[in-house]
Amino acid sequence: MAKIMMAFQVLPKVEDARLFEVVDEAIAVVAASGVKYEVGPMETTMEGEPDQLWAIIREAQEACVNAGASRVMTYIKMDYNPGRTTIDEKIQKYREK
Amino acid sequence: MAKIMMAFQVLPKVEDARLFEVVDEAIAVVAASGVKYEVGPMETTMEGEPDQLWAIIREAQEACVNAGASRVMTYIKMDYNPGRTTIDEKIQKYREK
Amino acid sequence: MAKIMMAFQVLPKVEDARLFEVVDEAIAVVAASGVKYEVGPMETTMEGEPDQLWAIIREAQEACVNAGASRVMTYIKMDYNPGRTTIDEKIQKYREK
Amino acid sequence: MAKIMMAFQVLPKVEDARLFEVVDEAIAVVAASGVKYEVGPMETTMEGEPDQLWAIIREAQEACVNAGASRVMTYIKMDYNPGRTTIDEKIQKYREK
Repeated sequence: MAKIMMAFQVLPKVEDARLFEVVDEAIAVVAASGVKYEVGPMETTMEGEPDQLWAIIREAQEACVNAGASRVMTYIKMDYNPGRTTIDEKIQKYREK
Repeated sequence: MAKIMMAFQVLPKVEDARLFEVVDEAIAVVAASGVKYEVGPMETTMEGEPDQLWAIIREAQEACVNAGASRVMTYIKMDYNPGRTTIDEKIQKYREK
Repeated sequence: MAKIMMAFQVLPKVEDARLFEVVDEAIAVVAASGVKYEVGPMETTMEGEPDQLWAIIREAQEACVNAGASRVMTYIKMDYNPGRTTIDEKIQKYREK
Repeated sequence: MAKIMMAFQVLPKVEDARLFEVVDEAIAVVAASGVKYEVGPMETTMEGEPDQLWAIIREAQEACVNAGASRVMTYIKMDYNPGRTTIDEKIQKYREK
């Protein structure tokens, strides 16, 4: 199946002082996954096959739970548009400025 | 695994006149799935196990593609909070008024 | 200006035991506003003019802060499509079943 | 009032061939506004006062309409957490790698 783009944000329920640390655990899962990704201020965008990206999001949630989160609200955007637009095509010109 | 709540909205790319009909195909997938669900104006909320609900969302996207959509933007909210709050607990009092 | 539809979800940062109570404060603002609205499990949808609905969301956030929230993550969907589809048209058939 | 972070994505309804061009019109509004911003693959994040950022989003929607969009679905995330975390603090380390 062709690659698609999915962005997600996790909001783990932890004490304030540990929030960034726990979100970093989620991003570490993405980084370790091998898919192309881009970290933004309020979501991380990935490229890959739908089920592969879903598995990464689930693993990122579990990483939050393992780091102490009692609850992980998650917001996902999915551009189900097989093979068409890549992360690079979308933002390249804004990064080159 | 305990049940969680997931809400999703599909935005299929089709001609205006067919938009509601195609979204109805997606909702029909949810209705046929057997999970508890609630249709809202801008998203449908379901209760079930995470992988089960993901499979329903994927099937709903395919239903949109089969109905003619060239692209299906999808917005998902996931309350990863195993077993705690149900749809009924959240909105019961607002429906009883 | 014609009416549009906006849905929003607030996630106030408060102790667990007070979460529903604080979200209810936000919904009370919507109820008191006089606009047509529908409470769902993960968002409340309203009909009105854009700036009017924005003012309600801002007031709902302040209600959360006044009720003790130190932070209010807010997720908004806006169907900027003046005058076309109403909440009733979208979900009527699913409520009549 | 202290600055907050808001991210938004516009989905203008236009013919496929003009989609990027119309989204660029929306981003041009942000760029011309003078606020700090970051363009991502599926949303643009801004820093500023809530009403100021709302006005930019509204102007970006109008820019889409002026460029030919018949409808502009808009997805907004708002971190209502006055003065605390900036875009730079959130993603700096991921850009420095």
